[in-house]
Amino acid sequence: MGVMKAAAFIDKNRIEIVEKKIPDVGPNDALIRITTTTICGTDVHILKGEYPVAKGLTVGHEPVGIIEKLGSNVKGYEEGQRVIAGAICPSFTSYPCQDGYPSQDGSYLMENGVCSCHGYKATAGWRFGNMIDGTQAEYVLVPDAQANLAPIPDGLTDEEVLMCPDIMSTGFKGAENANIEIGDIVAIFAQGPIGLCATAGARLKGASVIIAIDGNNERLEIAKKLGATVTLNFKEVDIIDEVMKLTNGRGVDASIEALGTQKTFEQALAILKPGGTLSSLGVYSQDLVIPLKYFAAGLGDHKINTALCPGGKERMRRLMNVIRSGNVDLKPLVTHQFKLDDIVEAYDLFANQRDGVLKVAIKP
Amino acid sequence: MGVMKAAAFIDKNRIEIVEKKIPDVGPNDALIRITTTTICGTDVHILKGEYPVAKGLTVGHEPVGIIEKLGSNVKGYEEGQRVIAGAICPSFTSYPCQDGYPSQDGSYLMENGVCSCHGYKATAGWRFGNMIDGTQAEYVLVPDAQANLAPIPDGLTDEEVLMCPDIMSTGFKGAENANIEIGDIVAIFAQGPIGLCATAGARLKGASVIIAIDGNNERLEIAKKLGATVTLNFKEVDIIDEVMKLTNGRGVDASIEALGTQKTFEQALAILKPGGTLSSLGVYSQDLVIPLKYFAAGLGDHKINTALCPGGKERMRRLMNVIRSGNVDLKPLVTHQFKLDDIVEAYDLFANQRDGVLKVAIKP
Amino acid sequence: MGVMKAAAFIDKNRIEIVEKKIPDVGPNDALIRITTTTICGTDVHILKGEYPVAKGLTVGHEPVGIIEKLGSNVKGYEEGQRVIAGAICPSFTSYPCQDGYPSQDGSYLMENGVCSCHGYKATAGWRFGNMIDGTQAEYVLVPDAQANLAPIPDGLTDEEVLMCPDIMSTGFKGAENANIEIGDIVAIFAQGPIGLCATAGARLKGASVIIAIDGNNERLEIAKKLGATVTLNFKEVDIIDEVMKLTNGRGVDASIEALGTQKTFEQALAILKPGGTLSSLGVYSQDLVIPLKYFAAGLGDHKINTALCPGGKERMRRLMNVIRSGNVDLKPLVTHQFKLDDIVEAYDLFANQRDGVLKVAIKP
Amino acid sequence: MGVMKAAAFIDKNRIEIVEKKIPDVGPNDALIRITTTTICGTDVHILKGEYPVAKGLTVGHEPVGIIEKLGSNVKGYEEGQRVIAGAICPSFTSYPCQDGYPSQDGSYLMENGVCSCHGYKATAGWRFGNMIDGTQAEYVLVPDAQANLAPIPDGLTDEEVLMCPDIMSTGFKGAENANIEIGDIVAIFAQGPIGLCATAGARLKGASVIIAIDGNNERLEIAKKLGATVTLNFKEVDIIDEVMKLTNGRGVDASIEALGTQKTFEQALAILKPGGTLSSLGVYSQDLVIPLKYFAAGLGDHKINTALCPGGKERMRRLMNVIRSGNVDLKPLVTHQFKLDDIVEAYDLFANQRDGVLKVAIKP
Repeated sequence: MGVMKAAAFIDKNRIEIVEKKIPDVGPNDALIRITTTTICGTDVHILKGEYPVAKGLTVGHEPVGIIEKLGSNVKGYEEGQRVIAGAICPSFTSYPCQDGYPSQDGSYLMENGVCSCHGYKATAGWRFGNMIDGTQAEYVLVPDAQANLAPIPDGLTDEEVLMCPDIMSTGFKGAENANIEIGDIVAIFAQGPIGLCATAGARLKGASVIIAIDGNNERLEIAKKLGATVTLNFKEVDIIDEVMKLTNGRGVDASIEALGTQKTFEQALAILKPGGTLSSLGVYSQDLVIPLKYFAAGLGDHKINTALCPGGKERMRRLMNVIRSGNVDLKPLVTHQFKLDDIVEAYDLFANQRDGVLKVAIKP
Repeated sequence: MGVMKAAAFIDKNRIEIVEKKIPDVGPNDALIRITTTTICGTDVHILKGEYPVAKGLTVGHEPVGIIEKLGSNVKGYEEGQRVIAGAICPSFTSYPCQDGYPSQDGSYLMENGVCSCHGYKATAGWRFGNMIDGTQAEYVLVPDAQANLAPIPDGLTDEEVLMCPDIMSTGFKGAENANIEIGDIVAIFAQGPIGLCATAGARLKGASVIIAIDGNNERLEIAKKLGATVTLNFKEVDIIDEVMKLTNGRGVDASIEALGTQKTFEQALAILKPGGTLSSLGVYSQDLVIPLKYFAAGLGDHKINTALCPGGKERMRRLMNVIRSGNVDLKPLVTHQFKLDDIVEAYDLFANQRDGVLKVAIKP
Repeated sequence: MGVMKAAAFIDKNRIEIVEKKIPDVGPNDALIRITTTTICGTDVHILKGEYPVAKGLTVGHEPVGIIEKLGSNVKGYEEGQRVIAGAICPSFTSYPCQDGYPSQDGSYLMENGVCSCHGYKATAGWRFGNMIDGTQAEYVLVPDAQANLAPIPDGLTDEEVLMCPDIMSTGFKGAENANIEIGDIVAIFAQGPIGLCATAGARLKGASVIIAIDGNNERLEIAKKLGATVTLNFKEVDIIDEVMKLTNGRGVDASIEALGTQKTFEQALAILKPGGTLSSLGVYSQDLVIPLKYFAAGLGDHKINTALCPGGKERMRRLMNVIRSGNVDLKPLVTHQFKLDDIVEAYDLFANQRDGVLKVAIKP
Repeated sequence: MGVMKAAAFIDKNRIEIVEKKIPDVGPNDALIRITTTTICGTDVHILKGEYPVAKGLTVGHEPVGIIEKLGSNVKGYEEGQRVIAGAICPSFTSYPCQDGYPSQDGSYLMENGVCSCHGYKATAGWRFGNMIDGTQAEYVLVPDAQANLAPIPDGLTDEEVLMCPDIMSTGFKGAENANIEIGDIVAIFAQGPIGLCATAGARLKGASVIIAIDGNNERLEIAKKLGATVTLNFKEVDIIDEVMKLTNGRGVDASIEALGTQKTFEQALAILKPGGTLSSLGVYSQDLVIPLKYFAAGLGDHKINTALCPGGKERMRRLMNVIRSGNVDLKPLVTHQFKLDDIVEAYDLFANQRDGVLKVAIKP
């Protein structure tokens, strides 16, 4: 079908624009012309060689675009339609999908009763820019398109839905996994894009006291706009002491970890009431320690829940409905815009967190 | 009211029979004449000075007996009635109780908006032999009796209901916390009395493949009687390899930790499918490590749930109903019987796990 | 202790101010000096003789006041403290309470294994103005005070917390019972005080499209302020057609019935998607019909949930936290104010729904 | 590919063996050679013209067979492999599927934001013998085969897994929808094949007292083998009185309706405790009445749940695991066997419920 530009992982510290063949469309696929995409923290890990992907793979996993071509089995869509797809693109047919864990898709090989992978691979539902070519390109091929193409409602701009595929879905899952009840006190550790979405999600689930924690006061200001009722800068106060004071020694009903470090995980547990839930979103890079004193020796009726970003068209439909309702405005998260051609510069800005960057919009 | 014999904690390594005044009965109390009680692993920790209680406190928390006297506010019972009470005796009126965590009772002091205890004390619902005089005595005073006295159905012996107050309630909670669905594969680590009850509970909740793990083949035999479909001796096989082989590399839907060590916790996590639940019952004595490789870096949709033994008369009613239904027979767990006068000897046998002891019945 | 004024049910169509003895305070009670209370639709049913209560009983079940005297067993409160209590005042100790249904309290008589009431009486947790003297008086005796007294946070006025004991707790329960997920479409039938609170609750639980339905445009305007994104006047449009149009033929994820009529129940079911939940709050006065065509012949994966207003101090604490957070402002619901002495006039206004009345504040 | 025999709906009261072309296999399909199938109550409704299907359609929806040919996109299976598929064959990709209701599949037409069907059709996940040719034939085409083919574990016979596709999946769902907790009292109305499976399911979910109700003592005997602890013949006792007596006036925690009549629905509600769940499996043929007196006027914290049989390969895998575990033996349900050629005779026996027939095995 001709060629296109794509940002590919060349080698450690090298993601560059290359030319690739526009992919062929199989019966269950759809080809999307990307109009807007973005860079994720995970892409930076790929750039730095900390998360391994195949050399030459197109990176990126957050597609906003237009249907260019539909596979012969994909029904109910039209070419030219504006759509998004989740960062995680499950088949929805595998055992883990049907078992309630579509993000953990990927166990085809169990059909004969023998799995070749010795434990189905966690996160196997993440395909764009991980197993298959991703979205930082002029075109992307969406697999299992019937399950994954989500039409953009009229009246929403690309920028308004750009957070749906990953950041918003992940952050909201953090709130959903926190067992929040009306009137709860919830603390969210780290107010990067995902933590900010978790803060917005906590408000959406009915929390009354929402404590946003970060070391950056600008981010804490955005957190307030998204629903935080209290903000704490860990450079200025002792987080554990402060939260226990705020709660009259009771602790929080739920804490959401949105960074992936020992310190935030540990604090998130320390401030939890007996019976409380620690909802973990962070991608950890080393063994975690659960301090006995914060764990009531295992007798505290505590719950620790982890999650991978939910995908699929129904999830995307719901998230876009939230945007459309006006209840949550995530536009402040998109702080910069770049052309696809300038993506190396965008990576440099984003990886070094300069100029108050939160998320960048990439336009092919 | 006269005096009674009681097994009191005198000092490290000394639990002895002493004489005490039979307690007065307040308006919300009931005095129970103990007919049978038992010794718990926790009591051994108390004996060894590893868990601190006040010197002179009567130990024991598993009461089976007869109502001797009822407080003026306690309605619907009769003196002479056979009853049990849970090891955990919540008030059911405090904030944590009404919040769904009665075992975490104990935050009276928050009423004025200020809690004196800096985080309400986990396990504060455990009173017998911890905060107040316990059950290894001729009489025990049950606080909040209206909430805690559970009549023994006709036809059940003391021995048949002796496991209800603690071991059965705890073990079953491990199964309940494991999110078991019909057809699940569940592994239970350690087949002491609590692990055996968790094994029975897993069967009761609908698991199809129940893998009981221990180093003692006699206990594994009892596990089979209680519902295990597979038994693994960790002295004979590599547990992780074996379970992955048994599940064709898929892992288990849920694992239940019933010992309280790093090794069993770690293995329980290692064999978990993405999306699976680790239900932890163990009382840990040191910081726990979550190995990154078994935790999918925090992206595995894993759940870790801890619990303290549920109490209260409704819980006890249900557990005795299970016994009465004949679905679970826990009599094999009561391997020895002692008079209260001989309790020092019983502690010696139990603490040293001699003669295949699982649980001892103590008869005042 | 002297005498007080109280509004008592004298006979059909007669609720009048009488003089009563200020009640004695038992060990588990608290005497509250009422500073504000209100009239509920149920009280009007009592007035009209449609719901039977004992002649001479003080009516009313929504107490806001000051602790005058505490029973000897009630700990952690102080006389002079401002408190509320729920309309439903469970003991929290009975079997139904411990079984998760405190509003269905009242089965004391099962303790001996024989219940005298042939099915424990639903709604038995409702005591004020039903089984015992209520709150439309200068003083009210709160039973099981340890479980039911909820201190008012500093800075909240009587009017701000006046809806917590009943209207807000019931309306929010309607939203909680509706299984609302982020992004849901929810319809609420009837925008009286309870329906308005259900509308506010639906927003608080994360619904994106909130369809408020009533025949009164003033109420629909208030619904918008509380979170409705769409309002429908059933006098102006066909509700079923309109909702199906609004949802592109999909139906709503959940509908909340807040009136108690066949028509609203039926419509609430008709617009439900397969898999949806009908959360019913209405007090019905006749047999209900489930039309086969709206019920998918029983194959629609539908859920119908009913509820009685939750009570207890933890519930009240949470609801007052919601008020304090500023997320929900229910002051517009209190449209009129009367002295206790003028309560006959207040009943007349409220029973006849004159002057746009929603709720009246009664001040002894 | 040649021709095959199939039992087709010709006209009212005429299902006959006809010759049909063996279907072509599309990329997402699989062709199964049927080795065993059965007749369902629904097929009898089709036979009698009470449930409309296209003339000429092959009936039947319970396939046990061998993979004859796989579509090009179907991975991880082998031709010659023994498999089953659920009676309900969802795509697992549509909005309702991803929303948690795969049995309510079928809303393809919403993709453009407009649904042509004015409410997506409940039960649209049921395709075999309803929308497409069914299983009472030599071959059946399984759509969305990747999601629906479930390999039969070694060692299980056709007869042993014949109940999995429909009867067992439906009956167990009835138990799963009943919110059963350990120690519950559960009543099951009607002990036909589905009710018997619901009885087995109630035991599997941890109920302690299982009350099976029917008018046929032979069926009640089978109910006992599957887990009933009490059996009641409605021709011999008053069901409501008897159950209230058995429960000391408390009522049951859950009741399961497995017939589809006003009388059983009404009784199932009448015996429910406040807070209890009515799990409805019946296919009703007329409007249902909820008597006010059994519904606590809508204030009883009651839950009514309906369901359609769950399908998909994960569900089938789990059900076959239950069979393999030996916990449930459903072979007694297969009372008769016929050749496909003799299916008219089989319908006659089954429709008239002669000779103690429960289910018939049909062998092509």
